[in-house]
Amino acid sequence: MRGVVMYAPGDVRVEDRSEPTILKPTDAVIRLSAACICGSDLWPYWGIEALDGPNPMGHEYVGIVEEVGSAVTTIRPGQFVVGSFFASDNTCEICRAGYQPSCPHKEPFGPTGASQAERMRVPLADGTLVATPDQPDPALVPDLLAASDVLGTGWFAAVAAQAGPGKTVVVVGDGAVGLLGVMAAQQLGAERIIAMSRHAPRQQLAREFGATDIVTERGADGVAAIKDLTDGLGAHSVIEAVGTQESMMQAIRSTRAGGHVGYVGVAHEVALPGMELFFSHVHLHGGPAPVRRFLPDLMDRIWNRTIRPGRVFDLELPLDEAAAGYRAMDERRAIKVLLRP
Amino acid sequence: MRGVVMYAPGDVRVEDRSEPTILKPTDAVIRLSAACICGSDLWPYWGIEALDGPNPMGHEYVGIVEEVGSAVTTIRPGQFVVGSFFASDNTCEICRAGYQPSCPHKEPFGPTGASQAERMRVPLADGTLVATPDQPDPALVPDLLAASDVLGTGWFAAVAAQAGPGKTVVVVGDGAVGLLGVMAAQQLGAERIIAMSRHAPRQQLAREFGATDIVTERGADGVAAIKDLTDGLGAHSVIEAVGTQESMMQAIRSTRAGGHVGYVGVAHEVALPGMELFFSHVHLHGGPAPVRRFLPDLMDRIWNRTIRPGRVFDLELPLDEAAAGYRAMDERRAIKVLLRP
Repeated sequence: MRGVVMYAPGDVRVEDRSEPTILKPTDAVIRLSAACICGSDLWPYWGIEALDGPNPMGHEYVGIVEEVGSAVTTIRPGQFVVGSFFASDNTCEICRAGYQPSCPHKEPFGPTGASQAERMRVPLADGTLVATPDQPDPALVPDLLAASDVLGTGWFAAVAAQAGPGKTVVVVGDGAVGLLGVMAAQQLGAERIIAMSRHAPRQQLAREFGATDIVTERGADGVAAIKDLTDGLGAHSVIEAVGTQESMMQAIRSTRAGGHVGYVGVAHEVALPGMELFFSHVHLHGGPAPVRRFLPDLMDRIWNRTIRPGRVFDLELPLDEAAAGYRAMDERRAIKVLLRP
Repeated sequence: MRGVVMYAPGDVRVEDRSEPTILKPTDAVIRLSAACICGSDLWPYWGIEALDGPNPMGHEYVGIVEEVGSAVTTIRPGQFVVGSFFASDNTCEICRAGYQPSCPHKEPFGPTGASQAERMRVPLADGTLVATPDQPDPALVPDLLAASDVLGTGWFAAVAAQAGPGKTVVVVGDGAVGLLGVMAAQQLGAERIIAMSRHAPRQQLAREFGATDIVTERGADGVAAIKDLTDGLGAHSVIEAVGTQESMMQAIRSTRAGGHVGYVGVAHEVALPGMELFFSHVHLHGGPAPVRRFLPDLMDRIWNRTIRPGRVFDLELPLDEAAAGYRAMDERRAIKVLLRP
């Protein structure tokens, strides 16, 4: 089968790879209906995250179940499924508390579990996958694909930031996760949603997703602009969806005392200064998003046409042209690229 | 009047100082019934916090109101009062949200507002002070004094860590704040309370305050001991009451995914590593304790003899012997020293 492999920073190839098979009785194998490129796939593309040899890529997926292991009881061949890239049992104490990526029984996807491919293996299928009620309208496939990671991640950030009625929410980061953080804040009932973005098409999408204000400044100027909009106090809830020292500090400094920062940008080379954090009085929560916690609800909202998160995909390419997709995201010509196997 | 002044690290003197007076119509002047030495007073004593010239000391206080400014409406001369060292209006949005130390209208106490003295000035008296229903039994004075800072701080840490029914709570730090964090966790209904301490008298007090387990190891060994006691998952709630890099990391690493760290140790020279924090999945909240938020409830529990937080005072000295009190705390011969003016 065909699949995407990153050989080195900037070197993405589509090549023939071995077919995934059932390795454990709890596995499933699915045929991908669509896959996509994640902002986090750019970290190794930029050389910021080290590659340990050629690396099969992709961790967002929707598809049709082809085969399940003998111990799988709730997922059957033929179902259309959405899953998280963290394979978790979804029955243990940590999963039941809603922190599936930290499940003590989680399993790695392994080399045949990469989703920028025609097929993939999903471990712990019962805990990891959620089936749709029926085969979806093809128009819903991008929306369901977004639920697999970026929507669930933006949603987690908004929940961690305690976005809700009466709250002013700031979103730092205008990638797909930040934009869907705007959508999540809107769905959770936030009163005011301030998107920080200097890119017109992303500002436009942020407004369509529910942003009431746009701030184009960054760093100290961005913080000053947020303070101006919030009686000098800062926002109640701030979503951090970048993962740099600057964006983390921008998020913390944009939050009022007693407010909440929800951070989902993978915090590369970040060191939070203790004294500033101490006197900021903010709540800080985040990490790898427990997408599985939110999947049933998010899939329901998509199925009912309440939300259209797939609108973050502004470029669609055949799987074989994945390298062009990486370039488009690297150069910020595309917000998010959908790949058709 | 007599008052304590720190001249340099290790150099504490009691000397004649000018009497406090009403400087603003919102001020009160109180005569101290008791004062005490705080763990945080040791930071400049050790030279870790710089002194900007001779510094009048003390920020915990109970006493009798002697005089109030013309704008003070709820506090009257003759009342016995407890207050927080953060003078806040207690009416603004931030105060009403319970974050009085971050009140945008807060006022500094100034040189006549230090409490290791016979008298002190309290700014924003209506917002800052809480009066007892009547003159207290002298036996309650140490308890009420503890409410002024260490009890309120331990309580905030326990609330920030979401200690409560069904929760396993770990307390890092066996100073007065940590010990009263144990008391707070017990009062908030925690199921299991693990105190980390290697000092027998403090272990004993922790047990009397409600600790169910004692862990004597620190650092990585301490974390391993906590994991052993919690099915390998870590505690739901961890109180950090020290304020060093080691204690913060010990607290974060002792917390399960999805759990809560409440930190109140002033975070000197702490830098939290982004990637570890990200993958820890913990909630982090803390900072200068909004003692004022908790004072009415805490004073009520003391008045009703439900709690006896004053038991953390294991050495009582006349104000004139304050230097001996600092030495006793520095050498860990005393948990907390009460000074009688």
